[in-house]
Amino acid sequence: MIARVLVDGRAEDRVSVLDRGLAYGDGLFETIRFLGAKAPLWPRHMQRLQDGCRRLSLSVPAPAILLAEAQAVSRDLPQSVVRITLTRGTGERGYKPPVSAQATRIVAAFDPPPRDEAACAEGIRVRLCATRLALQPRLAGLKHLNRLEQVLARAEWDDPAIAEGLLCDADGLAISTTAANLFAVFGGVLATPAVDRCGIAGVARAEVLSARPHAQVRPITLKELRRADELFLSSSVRGILPVRELDGQAFAVGAVTRALQSHWRELGF
Amino acid sequence: MIARVLVDGRAEDRVSVLDRGLAYGDGLFETIRFLGAKAPLWPRHMQRLQDGCRRLSLSVPAPAILLAEAQAVSRDLPQSVVRITLTRGTGERGYKPPVSAQATRIVAAFDPPPRDEAACAEGIRVRLCATRLALQPRLAGLKHLNRLEQVLARAEWDDPAIAEGLLCDADGLAISTTAANLFAVFGGVLATPAVDRCGIAGVARAEVLSARPHAQVRPITLKELRRADELFLSSSVRGILPVRELDGQAFAVGAVTRALQSHWRELGF
Repeated sequence: MIARVLVDGRAEDRVSVLDRGLAYGDGLFETIRFLGAKAPLWPRHMQRLQDGCRRLSLSVPAPAILLAEAQAVSRDLPQSVVRITLTRGTGERGYKPPVSAQATRIVAAFDPPPRDEAACAEGIRVRLCATRLALQPRLAGLKHLNRLEQVLARAEWDDPAIAEGLLCDADGLAISTTAANLFAVFGGVLATPAVDRCGIAGVARAEVLSARPHAQVRPITLKELRRADELFLSSSVRGILPVRELDGQAFAVGAVTRALQSHWRELGF
Repeated sequence: MIARVLVDGRAEDRVSVLDRGLAYGDGLFETIRFLGAKAPLWPRHMQRLQDGCRRLSLSVPAPAILLAEAQAVSRDLPQSVVRITLTRGTGERGYKPPVSAQATRIVAAFDPPPRDEAACAEGIRVRLCATRLALQPRLAGLKHLNRLEQVLARAEWDDPAIAEGLLCDADGLAISTTAANLFAVFGGVLATPAVDRCGIAGVARAEVLSARPHAQVRPITLKELRRADELFLSSSVRGILPVRELDGQAFAVGAVTRALQSHWRELGF
């Protein structure tokens, strides 16, 4: 449930129908796990948001203002997920970005998803989605507001026993799940799909890659993925989730996954 | 300028920050040219909106309600462009479509763009965009709210003498411009790119195809496009626009283009 929201710093839960975030998905977002007033991955979220603003030519909001607003909206929640949405602001009809656009800044706090001990301990079940990710290098990696592919993919199943759906790209390479990044271990070597043609460069993914600097970032076919010794997902909201079943095939939860779960606990999660 | 807007039938110009149209671009839109209370292409807009709702599993609003609302918001304008936006409504955080989502319906009237006699008579200049359209058959043809590709493409130039930008797909096929569909005439035969892998199935395009039932819908390479005898754009807002220059190359305004401009006038535009 939503606890509190600020729009451009004001207590307000609505935006103009002329906002380009609504009209065209012209903006970015971050979903940030807070533990009280602290967000262990905050600097990575700000880094990605700034990279995204640069790539979309959006003005970059001051991180100190965003942090103050995130702490304000989440202050009554012992734990929370804060979503920061940044759009190109209101504009006239038409795709052309307005010269004088004032970005719209939406900061909203939500209750975190309930902690799922079984998922963390034993792993989750993942299906294979029929929806493929289109290849668009201009937008790849960004957490932008054009997310119909994820909506369509997530609508493919309704079974609560299936926690996630694996997304392949148009060429059949494994990329991510609908809302998390994907890691695989092959003979002790950690690898994650490149996200330079589609997919999102997750903040939790960046943390894993920083903790494991020898991890490989490369194309991974679905066929190769099925031969992995370990599979896990990374999510800034849900942390490190072992995969115990992919599309009917069983996987063991291994040492690399457990080590990264420990790392997550050391971060404070 | 926006004249008047209704959200779910109420005089209101804002929507919830939790609306999935804003959060994920989870919705569709139509931009409809009105002449007083009449919109000559109204049935085609309703047909496309219904097709889109079916493909995205959105509930279909009653056309009679949409028409009444479109006429209400535009009633003070002798001519107008009415934008109807339909989203999956508000939802909790997460891509999964809510089971009980109530669609959000936004109906807004705008002044039409100024009539450009020179553009209609002599044609417009079109540049070639570097931004390519990604191939996504699940979304191709739909006028959905995920329009960052068009925003990026339209941001590529600022010269007011250039009216439009040509978009190719990832394979280099010519598809459309940033905000209009594309037609070419080769030896008297009319052709328009297929939009089953990317692009938007324009309402004006449908009208042209209906008026010219022998027109070809097929892949058109950029190279082939440069050999066309005539080039024109179709837009529900701007009508039939001859192209007199594509990426520096001159084109003559021909008989097929003029005949379709006449057809547009006969429609009442």
